[in-house]
Amino acid sequence: MSVIQQLIEEFSRLPGVGSKTAQRFGYYLLKRPREEALSLAAAIREVVEKIGPCEVCGNFTESVQCEICSNLNRDEAIICIVEEAYEVGAIERAGGYNGLYHVLGGRLSPLDGVGPDEINVKPLLDRIRAAGGLVSEVVVATNSSVEGEATAVYLEGVIRPLGPKVTRLARGLPVGSELEYVDGSTIIEAMVGRREM
Amino acid sequence: MSVIQQLIEEFSRLPGVGSKTAQRFGYYLLKRPREEALSLAAAIREVVEKIGPCEVCGNFTESVQCEICSNLNRDEAIICIVEEAYEVGAIERAGGYNGLYHVLGGRLSPLDGVGPDEINVKPLLDRIRAAGGLVSEVVVATNSSVEGEATAVYLEGVIRPLGPKVTRLARGLPVGSELEYVDGSTIIEAMVGRREM
Repeated sequence: MSVIQQLIEEFSRLPGVGSKTAQRFGYYLLKRPREEALSLAAAIREVVEKIGPCEVCGNFTESVQCEICSNLNRDEAIICIVEEAYEVGAIERAGGYNGLYHVLGGRLSPLDGVGPDEINVKPLLDRIRAAGGLVSEVVVATNSSVEGEATAVYLEGVIRPLGPKVTRLARGLPVGSELEYVDGSTIIEAMVGRREM
Repeated sequence: MSVIQQLIEEFSRLPGVGSKTAQRFGYYLLKRPREEALSLAAAIREVVEKIGPCEVCGNFTESVQCEICSNLNRDEAIICIVEEAYEVGAIERAGGYNGLYHVLGGRLSPLDGVGPDEINVKPLLDRIRAAGGLVSEVVVATNSSVEGEATAVYLEGVIRPLGPKVTRLARGLPVGSELEYVDGSTIIEAMVGRREM
């Protein structure tokens, strides 16, 4: 296999990249100045060599603890549980949340052989126990897919006995949406969760 | 800037990759076994270090001459001109062509400052001259965009005086297409180029 073929094969492992796109990436790098391709290669090496999970929450970090866990201004009484580390970024960019996080690194999915031991649940429970009552609320921000919901229900069952209140992100109409284009189940959720103005 | 940010920035330089996709690539590599990311990085380095232009036709190759130019079974009397090296692959995969190639590495585009000196035209003319009348036909396979057409017209003007017949890929209905969905200018081209059955 030629080296170009090999690169194209490597690129096509990336999510959402088929062989045509992988080929475009490969030839693009060949057309650009050599330094550009080398700096991409270097950035990839750098990331896998320097980045690891935060020992507290599982978020990606270049240190032992991530920036959020080691920030003394964050509210230690609230932990927000997300499935993947990149979802921390989504909530942080939105602003408005000042608590801590816990990254599961997946969701329960029995059909794929993913049970509670395969995701970051035990460290979460240990962490809540170790805080000795300091954690007053856990916000479950798993996705609203079937697996995400099942994971949320499971987490609620194991966390509540430890003391904290367990909450779930609200479901309802996305901001700026038009009723006409919102799916029925979202409208039902929005109706059930309606609040006094 | 964190190393993840840097990788995301590098990825977003790839064609058609926005910041969201670049982020997905970055986090994907972090989730996969470290070896996978390292082998992508290695493949990129390998390609830029080993691949260069064929000294005859400008196609990508790991040697001094590409596989096609150094293949004695190819018909040296026909040269097919393409804009980019990856287009050689498209014609080769289609099969049915046994001549040689010449890669321009671009198309004439005066607005972007790309004139005949910026693309691989002079080496093409030298090559035809050096063959001393052996080249009987040059197939211009530049794209059928405005720039591709202009490039074809320009090439015809400089090549014909050297002797070879200059041809252009046929335009017409794509195989398997339905008339109803084919655009008007293609239908006109197909009508103009109609052939006796």
